[in-house]
Amino acid sequence: MANFGGHAIPGTFFLFLGFWLTVKRILHHYWRTSQPKGRHNMPPFFKRMDYFEGGLQIFASFVGIMVEQFVVDGPHAHLYDRENSSWVKLMNWQHSTMYLFFGIAGIALVATTTSKLVPLGVDRLALSMALFVEGFLFYYHLHSRPHLDAHIHSLLLVAVFGGSASAMLEVFVRDNIILELLGACLFILQGTWFYQIGFVLYPLRGPQWDLELHDNVMFVTMCFCWHLAVALILVACTSSVVYLALSEWWRHSCQVRSRWRRS
Amino acid sequence: MANFGGHAIPGTFFLFLGFWLTVKRILHHYWRTSQPKGRHNMPPFFKRMDYFEGGLQIFASFVGIMVEQFVVDGPHAHLYDRENSSWVKLMNWQHSTMYLFFGIAGIALVATTTSKLVPLGVDRLALSMALFVEGFLFYYHLHSRPHLDAHIHSLLLVAVFGGSASAMLEVFVRDNIILELLGACLFILQGTWFYQIGFVLYPLRGPQWDLELHDNVMFVTMCFCWHLAVALILVACTSSVVYLALSEWWRHSCQVRSRWRRS
Amino acid sequence: MANFGGHAIPGTFFLFLGFWLTVKRILHHYWRTSQPKGRHNMPPFFKRMDYFEGGLQIFASFVGIMVEQFVVDGPHAHLYDRENSSWVKLMNWQHSTMYLFFGIAGIALVATTTSKLVPLGVDRLALSMALFVEGFLFYYHLHSRPHLDAHIHSLLLVAVFGGSASAMLEVFVRDNIILELLGACLFILQGTWFYQIGFVLYPLRGPQWDLELHDNVMFVTMCFCWHLAVALILVACTSSVVYLALSEWWRHSCQVRSRWRRS
Amino acid sequence: MANFGGHAIPGTFFLFLGFWLTVKRILHHYWRTSQPKGRHNMPPFFKRMDYFEGGLQIFASFVGIMVEQFVVDGPHAHLYDRENSSWVKLMNWQHSTMYLFFGIAGIALVATTTSKLVPLGVDRLALSMALFVEGFLFYYHLHSRPHLDAHIHSLLLVAVFGGSASAMLEVFVRDNIILELLGACLFILQGTWFYQIGFVLYPLRGPQWDLELHDNVMFVTMCFCWHLAVALILVACTSSVVYLALSEWWRHSCQVRSRWRRS
Repeated sequence: MANFGGHAIPGTFFLFLGFWLTVKRILHHYWRTSQPKGRHNMPPFFKRMDYFEGGLQIFASFVGIMVEQFVVDGPHAHLYDRENSSWVKLMNWQHSTMYLFFGIAGIALVATTTSKLVPLGVDRLALSMALFVEGFLFYYHLHSRPHLDAHIHSLLLVAVFGGSASAMLEVFVRDNIILELLGACLFILQGTWFYQIGFVLYPLRGPQWDLELHDNVMFVTMCFCWHLAVALILVACTSSVVYLALSEWWRHSCQVRSRWRRS
Repeated sequence: MANFGGHAIPGTFFLFLGFWLTVKRILHHYWRTSQPKGRHNMPPFFKRMDYFEGGLQIFASFVGIMVEQFVVDGPHAHLYDRENSSWVKLMNWQHSTMYLFFGIAGIALVATTTSKLVPLGVDRLALSMALFVEGFLFYYHLHSRPHLDAHIHSLLLVAVFGGSASAMLEVFVRDNIILELLGACLFILQGTWFYQIGFVLYPLRGPQWDLELHDNVMFVTMCFCWHLAVALILVACTSSVVYLALSEWWRHSCQVRSRWRRS
Repeated sequence: MANFGGHAIPGTFFLFLGFWLTVKRILHHYWRTSQPKGRHNMPPFFKRMDYFEGGLQIFASFVGIMVEQFVVDGPHAHLYDRENSSWVKLMNWQHSTMYLFFGIAGIALVATTTSKLVPLGVDRLALSMALFVEGFLFYYHLHSRPHLDAHIHSLLLVAVFGGSASAMLEVFVRDNIILELLGACLFILQGTWFYQIGFVLYPLRGPQWDLELHDNVMFVTMCFCWHLAVALILVACTSSVVYLALSEWWRHSCQVRSRWRRS
Repeated sequence: MANFGGHAIPGTFFLFLGFWLTVKRILHHYWRTSQPKGRHNMPPFFKRMDYFEGGLQIFASFVGIMVEQFVVDGPHAHLYDRENSSWVKLMNWQHSTMYLFFGIAGIALVATTTSKLVPLGVDRLALSMALFVEGFLFYYHLHSRPHLDAHIHSLLLVAVFGGSASAMLEVFVRDNIILELLGACLFILQGTWFYQIGFVLYPLRGPQWDLELHDNVMFVTMCFCWHLAVALILVACTSSVVYLALSEWWRHSCQVRSRWRRS
């Protein structure tokens, strides 16, 4: 992970997840609000989206764990080196642990979608746990790092724990579109911030950043707020576009159907 | 900002906003409780109030950003000075960021008022975010300042984060007049406390305060509680006066109308 | 306050308040659960209890403020001594501030009881604020005191902030007897703990406690849990006795009435 | 407690309690969801389970207190040694205090089960308090211990305070199976983590762990996440097995009954 690519990959993943959740939840919201009361059978399309999302999460975390373990300088599934009496590549093991929990969240999502016996909200609880574990491991990661490095990662924790709290709240407050979009927004924020961490700690070109300069810390704090603003605007725009496109498409397909009936 | 005026301007703004919210929310409350059940179309007057509030917020934050950027010793929209390899006037940029979020809150309020498609509560979420960002930036502002300076600003954070939490709660608990007035009260508290900070750090006359004296810290802590008491009393008085005036006016206009019908 | 009596007086007050609230809330609960649905006019007895409680709070805080101000070595309403350029007896002023907020809570209780226009829950909000201000001032009180002194007061904060949070929750979750008794229990805990602080810091007889000994800190922590257990048991016993006595009295008065009707 | 056995006993207790709660709550959930609406009389079997659980808690805490007090090197119910002017075996007293609160929780459970006058949720409040007191005493336990020792105990606090918060939430949000299973999961986590603490601090064989090595701290943090994953999986598997076995048994007994009616 200690290079630009190692931050860009999770960043891309979270960005994609954030947009996916925005679109999915707006679709749900549109369907909920446009249905007459009483009809509550979800169309199968929503199920297929959840299967896809859950399957992708399981697949991605499996690949992630494999890569972390069997990359050239990885631990190759060895945890303890008896010869040197030392732990082997704990960093890779920690990342594997994070992926494991996102995999569990994927399994929970698939299980909730498949069976009506699994109580609603188990998927959100598992997602909340995955984010909690991510933040928890990051939190104990930060000791004895340079100031800016520790600070930029601790700002990430705001997005991670915020997302965890928002997912936990969704277990109890269901079908609240604002809460759902807030969760998606925090995923996007996490994604863009991973990129920002990559750009700051492993600049692609130009000089290295001074990791102890107070002005850099101040700038990075402010920059986090800009990312938040951008994430808010991205979610707002995406959901407006999806919602309006849906309405348009729905009105159109109704017209087509009514014309077809009349003829 | 590093003078009395720089604290008096946001103080005045928050004071005004607090009173405005008190009056607006009492009007809403009166209307809600006095209507027979079933009639839930808001009179257009409320919409106009929201447009005014949102428009003013957008305008004020635009002016605020412009002033922070293009004041004589401002950054003039330059963020990084390549010659000296240093950031340009980060303080002004941070203030601009705060204004930006209040501007976003204004846009959210206007959008919620305009269209029924925007879910209720988006305006409160945006307000909560604006206060969170304000507190967040202030929090990382305070390191390595003199004791009293850091303390007096950290007391401000109580009002700011309290207001943010109360606005966030309003997303979920709607039409609770106590919560709404508590939010307004915390704005008034913030406003008066900005004035207090100005008086303490940049006294208009008399000697400077000793920024390391423990007794000053103790006094300032207590003084914050007095401001809270004053804010509570101001909100209580304003809402009583508005409520009673409304009842009086309503009773009067009913009498006039019934007399007019009889004649 | 810096003697045993100064801790015994608030201790007695909070103990009394805790028992009073237990009895009052059990009466309310009994009345709520024993009434057939639909009848929701409170008997005037409850109103009189609230007037008494509110009046006593106002009176007690008025007396408290007067005593703190005009006691022999008090500030006599002088806040700043211009000759020595120093604040006058800030400790007394802080205590006056705490009393002031309990007075405001009393006024809010009387107002809520008197008028139906005051929204339900304002009394709880004011009580929550009074406890918050008490904890807030205590919190900033503790710096640079001996270890045991700071620790024993910080344990008090657990009861104070717990009570504040529970009162705040009562604004939103109404008529939940468990929450109401928890609030009363935390007042009793606060009361007994004030006595404990008095006994530890100003022992009536025997040697002084060593304020830096780690074992004393450990004992005091454990002792706080015992106080909590005692407070829980006191609340449980009081409410059981009151509830059973009420049932007995109610059954008896019903029998008397029915006999009287038959004859 | 300062040996492996002293951590294995509470570990076994919490593990057992976690599994017991999982099974009990799934039984409740099955019964709730399979009943037609309106029938809300609990079968007596559930009452007997609660009596057993409460009775066992009371018995276990009584035995625990007795053992802690009258073990060979225990305090034998002496709190203060006047000769040496020192507290006697405060560690044992602290453990007794923890057991006391679990005993109170047992009494509350029995009382809630016995009488309808005890409001629903008192048992959860008492359980929440027992966990809070456990965490509270542990928290002030940790000062001036070696790094790894303090860290491994502070991770325990995550499970303890998490369990306390979840039990407190159950007072207000009733019959939410996800919340109930989360509580059970946190008990299992606590149980396995007690074992882990025993293995790390008092290894049965092999060399002692280096209590200051940063890598050990990192491993232990990650290991806690693995325990969480295991606890989640154990709860998921147990509840699935119980639920499916119940359904099978119910279907079977229905068939038997209908065959018996036809013949």
